[in-house]
Amino acid sequence: MTGTRSRLRALGIRVGRLEPGPLNAITDVAGVEVGYATIIEDAPAVLRTGVTAVWPGGRDVLARPVFAGIHSFNGNGEMTGSYWIAEQGMLTTPIAITNTHSVGLVRDAVGAYLIREGGDAPWLLPVAAETFDGRLSDSERLAVTVDHVFAALRSASGGAIAEGNVGGGTGMICHEFKGGTGTASRVVLEAGARYTVGALVQANYGQRELLRVDGVPVGEAISIDEVPSPRRPSSDTGSIIVVLATDAPLLPIQCQRLARRATTGLAWVGGLGANSSGDIFIAFSTANRIDPKAPTSAVTMVSPDVMTTLFRAAAEATEEAILNALSMAETMTGYRATAHALPLDRLQDVMRTYKRL
Amino acid sequence: MTGTRSRLRALGIRVGRLEPGPLNAITDVAGVEVGYATIIEDAPAVLRTGVTAVWPGGRDVLARPVFAGIHSFNGNGEMTGSYWIAEQGMLTTPIAITNTHSVGLVRDAVGAYLIREGGDAPWLLPVAAETFDGRLSDSERLAVTVDHVFAALRSASGGAIAEGNVGGGTGMICHEFKGGTGTASRVVLEAGARYTVGALVQANYGQRELLRVDGVPVGEAISIDEVPSPRRPSSDTGSIIVVLATDAPLLPIQCQRLARRATTGLAWVGGLGANSSGDIFIAFSTANRIDPKAPTSAVTMVSPDVMTTLFRAAAEATEEAILNALSMAETMTGYRATAHALPLDRLQDVMRTYKRL
Amino acid sequence: MTGTRSRLRALGIRVGRLEPGPLNAITDVAGVEVGYATIIEDAPAVLRTGVTAVWPGGRDVLARPVFAGIHSFNGNGEMTGSYWIAEQGMLTTPIAITNTHSVGLVRDAVGAYLIREGGDAPWLLPVAAETFDGRLSDSERLAVTVDHVFAALRSASGGAIAEGNVGGGTGMICHEFKGGTGTASRVVLEAGARYTVGALVQANYGQRELLRVDGVPVGEAISIDEVPSPRRPSSDTGSIIVVLATDAPLLPIQCQRLARRATTGLAWVGGLGANSSGDIFIAFSTANRIDPKAPTSAVTMVSPDVMTTLFRAAAEATEEAILNALSMAETMTGYRATAHALPLDRLQDVMRTYKRL
Amino acid sequence: MTGTRSRLRALGIRVGRLEPGPLNAITDVAGVEVGYATIIEDAPAVLRTGVTAVWPGGRDVLARPVFAGIHSFNGNGEMTGSYWIAEQGMLTTPIAITNTHSVGLVRDAVGAYLIREGGDAPWLLPVAAETFDGRLSDSERLAVTVDHVFAALRSASGGAIAEGNVGGGTGMICHEFKGGTGTASRVVLEAGARYTVGALVQANYGQRELLRVDGVPVGEAISIDEVPSPRRPSSDTGSIIVVLATDAPLLPIQCQRLARRATTGLAWVGGLGANSSGDIFIAFSTANRIDPKAPTSAVTMVSPDVMTTLFRAAAEATEEAILNALSMAETMTGYRATAHALPLDRLQDVMRTYKRL
Repeated sequence: MTGTRSRLRALGIRVGRLEPGPLNAITDVAGVEVGYATIIEDAPAVLRTGVTAVWPGGRDVLARPVFAGIHSFNGNGEMTGSYWIAEQGMLTTPIAITNTHSVGLVRDAVGAYLIREGGDAPWLLPVAAETFDGRLSDSERLAVTVDHVFAALRSASGGAIAEGNVGGGTGMICHEFKGGTGTASRVVLEAGARYTVGALVQANYGQRELLRVDGVPVGEAISIDEVPSPRRPSSDTGSIIVVLATDAPLLPIQCQRLARRATTGLAWVGGLGANSSGDIFIAFSTANRIDPKAPTSAVTMVSPDVMTTLFRAAAEATEEAILNALSMAETMTGYRATAHALPLDRLQDVMRTYKRL
Repeated sequence: MTGTRSRLRALGIRVGRLEPGPLNAITDVAGVEVGYATIIEDAPAVLRTGVTAVWPGGRDVLARPVFAGIHSFNGNGEMTGSYWIAEQGMLTTPIAITNTHSVGLVRDAVGAYLIREGGDAPWLLPVAAETFDGRLSDSERLAVTVDHVFAALRSASGGAIAEGNVGGGTGMICHEFKGGTGTASRVVLEAGARYTVGALVQANYGQRELLRVDGVPVGEAISIDEVPSPRRPSSDTGSIIVVLATDAPLLPIQCQRLARRATTGLAWVGGLGANSSGDIFIAFSTANRIDPKAPTSAVTMVSPDVMTTLFRAAAEATEEAILNALSMAETMTGYRATAHALPLDRLQDVMRTYKRL
Repeated sequence: MTGTRSRLRALGIRVGRLEPGPLNAITDVAGVEVGYATIIEDAPAVLRTGVTAVWPGGRDVLARPVFAGIHSFNGNGEMTGSYWIAEQGMLTTPIAITNTHSVGLVRDAVGAYLIREGGDAPWLLPVAAETFDGRLSDSERLAVTVDHVFAALRSASGGAIAEGNVGGGTGMICHEFKGGTGTASRVVLEAGARYTVGALVQANYGQRELLRVDGVPVGEAISIDEVPSPRRPSSDTGSIIVVLATDAPLLPIQCQRLARRATTGLAWVGGLGANSSGDIFIAFSTANRIDPKAPTSAVTMVSPDVMTTLFRAAAEATEEAILNALSMAETMTGYRATAHALPLDRLQDVMRTYKRL
Repeated sequence: MTGTRSRLRALGIRVGRLEPGPLNAITDVAGVEVGYATIIEDAPAVLRTGVTAVWPGGRDVLARPVFAGIHSFNGNGEMTGSYWIAEQGMLTTPIAITNTHSVGLVRDAVGAYLIREGGDAPWLLPVAAETFDGRLSDSERLAVTVDHVFAALRSASGGAIAEGNVGGGTGMICHEFKGGTGTASRVVLEAGARYTVGALVQANYGQRELLRVDGVPVGEAISIDEVPSPRRPSSDTGSIIVVLATDAPLLPIQCQRLARRATTGLAWVGGLGANSSGDIFIAFSTANRIDPKAPTSAVTMVSPDVMTTLFRAAAEATEEAILNALSMAETMTGYRATAHALPLDRLQDVMRTYKRL
């Protein structure tokens, strides 16, 4: 709980049927580290922005990449580094998420950080993604600097991580409530193995009336007449970046498949990839670490049939990560609007009305 | 109503918020015609199969193709003709849907029909898709013949169309209830125009416990303990083919985008693209008819921003088409199993319990 | 040599710089077997058609699939089974190649063969591809039968294989000369390992004036004024199917990359993916055999850097396979035209003129 | 001619058979403008880098985008803005090309320029691509600044444009000779219309021994024993960005197809998409200018059959643009190597030897 905010499960609301990991966070996948740089300033400019960094498995990802895959559900967005991942199936850099106007700087800075830290990789193609925070932040000020990126990268750690108005998610809006950063995880027991799938989202999309919590039409019940929207007119604009991590041994092609299931979790909450939305999903597996210089590498792949439960885990973790972003983000007044937090008591009321609590 | 069966809306259950067209069917899109051949026999072989044919806009589709696009959410299936549609963006043949083992024959037969009817198109690449009906039909008997295909093509018409155990959907299973063929439509009023989006599905996928109706966990409430599953063990196998039609003037790339939103409607019902599932979606627009021999063609495209509402229409129509397949299909005993119909009184009970009826 | 025909190298012409394998054929990749059914009849109908079957690694491919990937350079063609390969990265059936109108029947027949031979795989999605032979064969007669498919599958073997007017390639035309079936291979020595890449093509594309042999403008030198074209007017129509096999341990994503390099070999001969051409390429690796039922599988992947030489091998093998189809195919008079063989003495003349022989 | 350098045609060497436009440059497509910022400094750091900017049709591309499509032949590279183009089929920003480490800064700067010049487009997704110049330039110095980007954008013009060591191509290496920026065009007369296809390349790829000029093995004839390579060991590393422009009225899907044909032109010169290569191609059509705010837009599409000749034009223009980069670039000594210019007299010798001059 942060101030008056709470994660979804602490409210007694459980979405999905698979069990979460111990932290119910992407960091339940061993080795995954998350760091933030958060910029909240009122003068000389109103800034509500930042950087989120996800290390996919220790700091040596450049020397020992992991397999990864991407899916673009609606491509009105950006994720640099995608061509290389699509081609090679490997993720060799941390993933950084920021605001739209800073994605280039953040991309270059991730590369500079890796070179500075000793990487010998002239042709780094770093992964940086974005969602737009121009309602709450004066984003044309280009407030994010190389130092912010370095700070997010350097401070990343495992364990419990902050949610809501932090990092790249600081100024985001989701279903016309205050959105931001959220995370969740699921544990899969299949074929004698125990796998974890974790999700981290930067949620900045969605129309109020489409919001659902475990199928309940919460967005209709807590309409913009009750809690005003920061978007005028009410609209489904914005984007969502989803990062999926798993320790299940997936090949690149299987990572692509997993990434595609963020679509399902997003749909459950009420996201349908609006025209102006950049809904781009990246999934990686920490189970195979590749030495690109070895003539051949021995890798492990999970049975295709196990994918079904991993798909469900990815959908559920995405769903709950978005809802955690909503339930953890606090009301924020910014550049051009106030984004109200999803009122948790009202959320519980509505869930009770529909016999789901 | 067919016997004791009913369409979803006739039960008082409304999913989605956009209005359906007059028929709440894919045939609300002017010019779209649907035909069926249904094979139900008990001797010498137990057969529960057939062919569904969709003409995308009159019988002259070969001479005057429409724009189309495809999305594969999970590719454990087949849709012939896809390469050409992906390359050219045009649909030049009717779409036929049948069982897995007959898709080749049906593909060839569609081509033969077009040639016989006067087409001068040596390199026809017909569109035939499939889902697997081997639980209810002795599908290795290859019961579908060229005559069945011709009959489905010839008998196609606009107006109200049959649902449930008809055509290619005859022997299908959905969320472990009896599935089959379903349809629905939505009307979009945008920018001074009125557009219709229609869906037709051949639904043969899904796990019971994941079934939701307007967000209500119906599959948990009417579990396989109450209504047995035709799949043992209970599993999420099978496939779904979704055909989306619209009279909105979409370019090929916009048809691809529309097709991708069947994913959203499918998710709302509880489909997540299980590993063994062939979830392949095709969308076409009847608004532009191309003369491939003209040096240039004048075509109309809808504004990108209008796509958002069309996306919602596609998702809602897909959702309701699946539910219509479930609510219209009657219990069927077949080759290796009995697939029970979704009990409509119980469905209404559950919706009432959750205050949605 | 077949009659007066000869493989390219026997004429003293060497394209590419890597060494071929012992057979200079796709069957240099251990385990790959090729079989043909050839239909040449003059009454009651003029038929010049057939079926080519490629087993990717023994007859147990259904139980122990190989990794595979596909690239469509120009999708005016058909290759059934593609969705599953794109999704799973596995090839579970032999690859069959035939004429356009028979691809459905051939697809179904491959499935029937596998089921008959003991496969327990209800949802087989067989791979069947096509090119159009309607100039030389009365292809609307649908001459190919299930028995032809079975014969091609059953008769497949390793070792030296026939080229030119055989199997699915029987009635094909290439660069307005007689085309058909061709094969070639390359050996790659990289990082202490020895890998083989083999190609088999069904070549039915291309304009005369674009034909090049090792860069020499042979098609300009032996124009349609000298050797008439079977196409009137002269045109770049038709298609090419390329099958690439390798024993290098490639992941599915790497197979996709290899397949894409058939584009390069095709370009070297003079193919640019004309609008009406179905230029679809499939690559598979025999090195990893997957047990889909095992919870996990140990697989080997080659270093990304080794791919460069494999790419070159794929391009060279494709190039030479097309040229072998041309140099081995004999003049054929058929349904609506005579396709003249590339005159080998003239070919040598031209190569000498340009100081390449 | 620049100093002792010359365009290919001025040497008497003609590749391809279609006629070039009056300038034999991408600027033959009316409205296309190209600008450069070139950085050549020896102290305090050795810099050989820059920015190339291509305006696809006047400065109002943001308000009136053009249709565009992308193909990645080998994705070891970067082109920001790709997701949006893939999704919407529209290009709304100029295309900038620079070195690998600066692509983020250049991307952001293009956006800043558009906003400054009056654009009202909060979620700009600019297109910036790269190839790596770290052999000749101390690229970790991040020498490119926002001012360079603005200068390239501002100075862009139609008419004849510089080639060789200019703009983003300043420090590039091609087939182990000095590479850089090149351009060419082709005129297509089809169906009563006259269309132009232009190419601009930033060529930084390729192995010496693979270099061909009109099919002649120039790279074998002028080997690294004769003219040393700036790469030690000799290797096929690097990348190529190809920009294709046309005034033929192409839909987005047709732009994608055109972009794919850069592969063919690249193959003719000797590029096969080496593993470490980022071979990314973008094509746009100036014929349809879209008003994204209009409810519908009337657009024109060219007949599919016309595409074949446009494909050939794209392949030929790409081929000649690469060769112009080689023939125009002067020898350059830089950070870690000297890249020797392709010796033009020797080129002519070799062409004569093989009877092609």
